[in-house]
Amino acid sequence: MIHVYTGNGKGKTTAAVGLAIRALGRGQKALIIQWLKGRAAGEMELLKKMPGVDCHQFGREQFVQKDSLQKEDHQEAQKGLETLRKAIRRAQYQLIVLDEINVALELGLVEAGELLPLLGKCPTGVELVLTGRNAPQELVEQADYVTEMREIKHPYQKGVKARKGVEY
Amino acid sequence: MIHVYTGNGKGKTTAAVGLAIRALGRGQKALIIQWLKGRAAGEMELLKKMPGVDCHQFGREQFVQKDSLQKEDHQEAQKGLETLRKAIRRAQYQLIVLDEINVALELGLVEAGELLPLLGKCPTGVELVLTGRNAPQELVEQADYVTEMREIKHPYQKGVKARKGVEY
Repeated sequence: MIHVYTGNGKGKTTAAVGLAIRALGRGQKALIIQWLKGRAAGEMELLKKMPGVDCHQFGREQFVQKDSLQKEDHQEAQKGLETLRKAIRRAQYQLIVLDEINVALELGLVEAGELLPLLGKCPTGVELVLTGRNAPQELVEQADYVTEMREIKHPYQKGVKARKGVEY
Repeated sequence: MIHVYTGNGKGKTTAAVGLAIRALGRGQKALIIQWLKGRAAGEMELLKKMPGVDCHQFGREQFVQKDSLQKEDHQEAQKGLETLRKAIRRAQYQLIVLDEINVALELGLVEAGELLPLLGKCPTGVELVLTGRNAPQELVEQADYVTEMREIKHPYQKGVKARKGVEY
């Protein structure tokens, strides 16, 4: 089945990570592919050391925006997609997280026309978890689970910067 | 700081679990207290085996509703609160998850008048993460982070039952 965590609120990536932990706790194997996140993150540091889960990050260290896209961003995004293709072909995971793929779609680094048919080809029994704000409407229509994380309150509204161990 | 994950959508407990994994990945220590969940769950099976995190579940195996509350439910909920009191006193954790506490509040198993002053006493530098639908307004006001998980789509709407490794 296809799961989508979208919206502007905190908790999308961590919800996907928590689902991976739930799957691992049931003896399943999980794959986590992150787009646009070349930076270190607490959860990835730990997951990389855990048995039963494979993690791949594709992206530069810098924060990427629409007007600062580089050739490397496209190349990295495509490598992420290739990793997904292989994983679907090999059918060795019960859970596959595509973290921040919605943002990669929004930035045009991945085309919905490439991604959605690929999701459709995924064998039954595989859970695909897509995260990132602004999930495209076609994805929402194809998905089985869609949760919108709505930000009601966040300390950055008061000027507090992202904190290690909490935001990353 | 105080974090709240509420709303009717999927991802509240898993987001809290993901935050715990992020904290652990940064070398922090975490405590997870679950109310109303005496049942086995994939994530708890795994977390119980992991170093750096302590997990406690308080509740009966059965699903609890407002009109089926028993003395045991009150006793279990109070044990959870006592575990929280001790943890705050000993100050040994950087992250404390109070899973489903909002539901315990709604059912009257825990009183907001007991809980909220306790949260206020928590030392700076401790992240408190409260989950469950229908977070009370006083909690939302006291919190620093509030995310509402809104259900846009869920397969139970089509009659699909909760699945092992995905819903629990």
